[in-house]
Amino acid sequence: MSSTIGEKIKISIFGESHGKAIGVVIDGLPTGQKLDIDKILLEMKRRAPGNDKTATPRKEADFPEILSGIVDLTTTGAPLCAVIHNTNTKSKDYSNIKKCPRPGHSDYPAFVKYNGFNDIAGGGHFSGRITAPIVFAGAVCKQILMEKGIKVTAHINSIGSVEDKSFDPCNITDDVIENLLNSSFPLIDNSKEDAMRKVVMDAASDKDSVGGTIECAVTGLWAGIGGPMFDGIEGKIAKAVFGIPAMKGIEFGKGFDLAKMRGSESNDNFRYDENGNVYTQTNNCGGILGGITNGMPITFKVAVKPTPSIAQPQDTINLETKENDVLEIKGRHDPCIVLRAVPVIEAITAITILDLIS
Amino acid sequence: MSSTIGEKIKISIFGESHGKAIGVVIDGLPTGQKLDIDKILLEMKRRAPGNDKTATPRKEADFPEILSGIVDLTTTGAPLCAVIHNTNTKSKDYSNIKKCPRPGHSDYPAFVKYNGFNDIAGGGHFSGRITAPIVFAGAVCKQILMEKGIKVTAHINSIGSVEDKSFDPCNITDDVIENLLNSSFPLIDNSKEDAMRKVVMDAASDKDSVGGTIECAVTGLWAGIGGPMFDGIEGKIAKAVFGIPAMKGIEFGKGFDLAKMRGSESNDNFRYDENGNVYTQTNNCGGILGGITNGMPITFKVAVKPTPSIAQPQDTINLETKENDVLEIKGRHDPCIVLRAVPVIEAITAITILDLIS
Amino acid sequence: MSSTIGEKIKISIFGESHGKAIGVVIDGLPTGQKLDIDKILLEMKRRAPGNDKTATPRKEADFPEILSGIVDLTTTGAPLCAVIHNTNTKSKDYSNIKKCPRPGHSDYPAFVKYNGFNDIAGGGHFSGRITAPIVFAGAVCKQILMEKGIKVTAHINSIGSVEDKSFDPCNITDDVIENLLNSSFPLIDNSKEDAMRKVVMDAASDKDSVGGTIECAVTGLWAGIGGPMFDGIEGKIAKAVFGIPAMKGIEFGKGFDLAKMRGSESNDNFRYDENGNVYTQTNNCGGILGGITNGMPITFKVAVKPTPSIAQPQDTINLETKENDVLEIKGRHDPCIVLRAVPVIEAITAITILDLIS
Amino acid sequence: MSSTIGEKIKISIFGESHGKAIGVVIDGLPTGQKLDIDKILLEMKRRAPGNDKTATPRKEADFPEILSGIVDLTTTGAPLCAVIHNTNTKSKDYSNIKKCPRPGHSDYPAFVKYNGFNDIAGGGHFSGRITAPIVFAGAVCKQILMEKGIKVTAHINSIGSVEDKSFDPCNITDDVIENLLNSSFPLIDNSKEDAMRKVVMDAASDKDSVGGTIECAVTGLWAGIGGPMFDGIEGKIAKAVFGIPAMKGIEFGKGFDLAKMRGSESNDNFRYDENGNVYTQTNNCGGILGGITNGMPITFKVAVKPTPSIAQPQDTINLETKENDVLEIKGRHDPCIVLRAVPVIEAITAITILDLIS
Repeated sequence: MSSTIGEKIKISIFGESHGKAIGVVIDGLPTGQKLDIDKILLEMKRRAPGNDKTATPRKEADFPEILSGIVDLTTTGAPLCAVIHNTNTKSKDYSNIKKCPRPGHSDYPAFVKYNGFNDIAGGGHFSGRITAPIVFAGAVCKQILMEKGIKVTAHINSIGSVEDKSFDPCNITDDVIENLLNSSFPLIDNSKEDAMRKVVMDAASDKDSVGGTIECAVTGLWAGIGGPMFDGIEGKIAKAVFGIPAMKGIEFGKGFDLAKMRGSESNDNFRYDENGNVYTQTNNCGGILGGITNGMPITFKVAVKPTPSIAQPQDTINLETKENDVLEIKGRHDPCIVLRAVPVIEAITAITILDLIS
Repeated sequence: MSSTIGEKIKISIFGESHGKAIGVVIDGLPTGQKLDIDKILLEMKRRAPGNDKTATPRKEADFPEILSGIVDLTTTGAPLCAVIHNTNTKSKDYSNIKKCPRPGHSDYPAFVKYNGFNDIAGGGHFSGRITAPIVFAGAVCKQILMEKGIKVTAHINSIGSVEDKSFDPCNITDDVIENLLNSSFPLIDNSKEDAMRKVVMDAASDKDSVGGTIECAVTGLWAGIGGPMFDGIEGKIAKAVFGIPAMKGIEFGKGFDLAKMRGSESNDNFRYDENGNVYTQTNNCGGILGGITNGMPITFKVAVKPTPSIAQPQDTINLETKENDVLEIKGRHDPCIVLRAVPVIEAITAITILDLIS
Repeated sequence: MSSTIGEKIKISIFGESHGKAIGVVIDGLPTGQKLDIDKILLEMKRRAPGNDKTATPRKEADFPEILSGIVDLTTTGAPLCAVIHNTNTKSKDYSNIKKCPRPGHSDYPAFVKYNGFNDIAGGGHFSGRITAPIVFAGAVCKQILMEKGIKVTAHINSIGSVEDKSFDPCNITDDVIENLLNSSFPLIDNSKEDAMRKVVMDAASDKDSVGGTIECAVTGLWAGIGGPMFDGIEGKIAKAVFGIPAMKGIEFGKGFDLAKMRGSESNDNFRYDENGNVYTQTNNCGGILGGITNGMPITFKVAVKPTPSIAQPQDTINLETKENDVLEIKGRHDPCIVLRAVPVIEAITAITILDLIS
Repeated sequence: MSSTIGEKIKISIFGESHGKAIGVVIDGLPTGQKLDIDKILLEMKRRAPGNDKTATPRKEADFPEILSGIVDLTTTGAPLCAVIHNTNTKSKDYSNIKKCPRPGHSDYPAFVKYNGFNDIAGGGHFSGRITAPIVFAGAVCKQILMEKGIKVTAHINSIGSVEDKSFDPCNITDDVIENLLNSSFPLIDNSKEDAMRKVVMDAASDKDSVGGTIECAVTGLWAGIGGPMFDGIEGKIAKAVFGIPAMKGIEFGKGFDLAKMRGSESNDNFRYDENGNVYTQTNNCGGILGGITNGMPITFKVAVKPTPSIAQPQDTINLETKENDVLEIKGRHDPCIVLRAVPVIEAITAITILDLIS
């Protein structure tokens, strides 16, 4: 088992939801990089609970302590370790799920894999909470990417059946990017916010939860990054994204819609612009051909399943009695994690892109 | 750049479409495994061109020569190298695409990445032809999996807008599996064959191509395989699948449909069967929770884009004149690669699963 | 750059000598392993400074705080992170070496590699202090190995020109092992202690330092572990050992003496003992043939260079003035690190062996 | 098990001594590199048997066929596969060793590891013959290094007790390098050739074999390559070198002699030369400090054990009867492999260095 990813920029995630601390070691960062801590904290706040009514009211003191790898907030080239201490944990909420695995959760397969020794409290190492150090690492990588003109931006693409517009994949302007990063509910078409919130609130009032999709774009990345076969960009991003809990699908560019198209529709024709730069007239491929960037924005969408922790009684098994049972999950849970997952998807994408160009 | 994948079972793919040979080195196979060459050849024939009217009439002598790693057709534990010599190649067909990159192909990004030195003939190392050694490696892995009761089976899930039924993810019988493996056009609902063939033939007669989707299932795999975060099954399968040319999306279980569900619908409740075995009443998660198998069949779908090589004139650029240009692609090309990709998806999945349990 | 090693048991080391903390993330440990903290602390005390007159009198509070991966001191299967906070640091001692690189130290090549941004204080990430978390990780691995009957034991093989006896590589008894582990100056022939101490004290009084060798043995490991070529045991141990600062040579079994032998002398003949177990009559190969264990004890020796930090004035360059200069290193330094390196060599070997058999 | 090494330049070795072919896949080579086949053949001839009286008279047709990765002898960036077909094999010579493992050989541990399924003929995948593709890959890497001014050169440092001079590690001239590369018996002090040959011939006439040492140097490599801990140059070279059969020790710079020195002797003082370039007045560290190059030549020595295949009767076990037995090895064997190992050490070092700077 490994919570490590990357080749040149390696991150190693540790920690359990209700343990002493969670954190990350980042190895391979360029030296001499000045870190803007405020920007890092801002990213972490975007992911933190308690910011929005659609998320859990539980508060987390997600303040990262950097133990190594910097002097005067400047990277030394040595591995950077950041730790986030766990404070506001309510272990008692998880007393019954040790024996009755929660439907939709990792409890049962983890019980089998770890012979029952895994830390079940708060989801342990499977908890969504361990995405906090990923957001920290992503915020560091984003700053380095930004200096190279590369931006990673995501938005809520849908919640339940309510859909936002997609990016215009040929023209993702800085205005669009800025608006999304500064929004507490990042949408391209803000008129959908109320309908989306209603979907979440309705689910919450039914003691239920709801899923959604996120679209992410990488702009400013030049052509020629990636490689054929198992070094392809799609595979690298997909492996990273599926490392985030609750992600169940990913598609690049038009993705599954390409399957219904003809080649004459789906092929993106090449053209020179007035400055002699190559572009494509459409961007159905999401900026990637043969696993390699073609210089157009990378775009992809991910499917986020509904939060499995719901307050309704659910049928499950009892691992002690070996009989069927019913479980009612206590505690405070997000009725929808899509909003909080937006900065996480940005973060893991930024880490992957920096790894690719390092 | 790397055409290598796997940790315990490592495969390394080499070869260009119109070079001397293509092949694979497989490292880490168990010793003493007797190989059934007929079964391997059968798998390779499923992928080979010229078998079906929906595919290219071009013939390939896809006969693998095993150079190492076996004595008396039994694995020795040393790396197994198999080579497929290229014979029927028509390099002249590719004379104009060196300067005019084909829309939808890797030509342009590969030109940038390799400074123009990549072998363009027949797509070079990016050609769909290099999936032949993957099918060889997959056929070897399938035999080893079969002895452990694990089967990997795929079918055409859709071509254009014509859809096959999906697997019943809670009950994939040996009958269903056998029917698919023995079919020259693997569908669960065979009544859809004619409509699908018509979609392909219509596209072909329009000098066009068409995409589709493939569904794949892994049955017989026990609970507890995989791991959290970057060791998750979804990420490993996704990285492998995106190594196959033309794949643009992947979703596990209900995938993108989960995004529209509520938790009470999407959660798969656990139950004991009469023998005390754990199962889930639904299998929306595709057999994977928290990146770990739960003992139910793994199911996933992939999006296959339309073949980018179409005979219609297409707008593109001329890398020599630095001006916009028009390209007409000559040669024989598949109007739809979905059928031929079915055994490839099975193969890369079998390689991945064997790696996971080795 | 990477401070990570291992395939199934991965360790990731972080921290600089004078930063906030140093530590390690251990990924891949078996679940349900009860840790004996007293034994871990004992190992760390063996490496800690201030224990012996031959070492620096500087005290370090090497108390590891385990942040994750355990519940009730039992491993959960999630990554285990342990942190050792730095307390007793005297950064002022290192003021002049930023511009004048110390002969024999990494200062100059690190300056080139990191463009001067590396943390020079106390040697930063190159400091011998970062072996403390390695000893922690090794102590964890040793406990797991011990339950399988595998022991890793090292002793001072020489200091300067004074040599200890070597292990009898065919018969390393538990008595010999116990004596070494419980000794504050581990020698097989204790009569050499005084002479060795005199070599160190003489060097110290001359403001100089002295090198030595360490011999390490792994007992209880069965035949068949390792592999040919780049999976060989020698290569894995060597890569791990050279990760420890100051190691400049390694030889397995009779090592460089084999180069002077004939095959009839060096070959270890196989025999069955009275119980039908295979053994070799000699063990010149150090328990490894073709990169694979043969069931006899693994033995190897490493060369430890003299501590480069000496108090004598030394010729060096001044990176600011770009002129030749003279440096006098201040601060407290070990006149000989061989004694303190003994548990470090054991630790890195234990980590490597556990990785190999996991 | 894995016969793969490298991160950016990955080589994957396959083949058994008496199988159809042996070969190598090289992944990650720079594109557009013109290969000089004559130089490659020259390197392979240096390793080939039958060239010198000290080696086996057995002839091998070591002509590599390049299957992929080049067009017009220029690298395309795709994996380069080269195959050497096995022709002159005498499998009957190895009939008795299947049951009676040869002392000093991998037969017994391989039997255990592979449950008896490994290919014993000619040593199978453990044979020295599989170093032929390593020499091929090294010859390719050497050409690329040469264009960057980096040269890798080795010589016989000793055979039995007869020693050659060592390199002057501060001043390895092109004259010295040229003389060694063009010599059929590469020595710095050619007056030692007769004595060395006599040692080998005496052993041969006694049906015995003899070991030796090889010294290797890398010149022209700049400062700042490598990294601390497990990214150190020593560890990378050591892991690669121990992948070559019969290597049992390695030491960098003064190596084990450093253990007897004081710091004031062993430290290499830094100086500026008249052009403002940094050098060290001695080079006891072998050009490596803290795992990173300091710009001086890298030098290291390796210990080569005597060929284990000797014609004298040797005590061993019989795996069929489970009783002690006596073995007489038939066939033609090298009485000393040191001479033939010289280009192999150069090759694996060149591969490692190119990987480090890619």
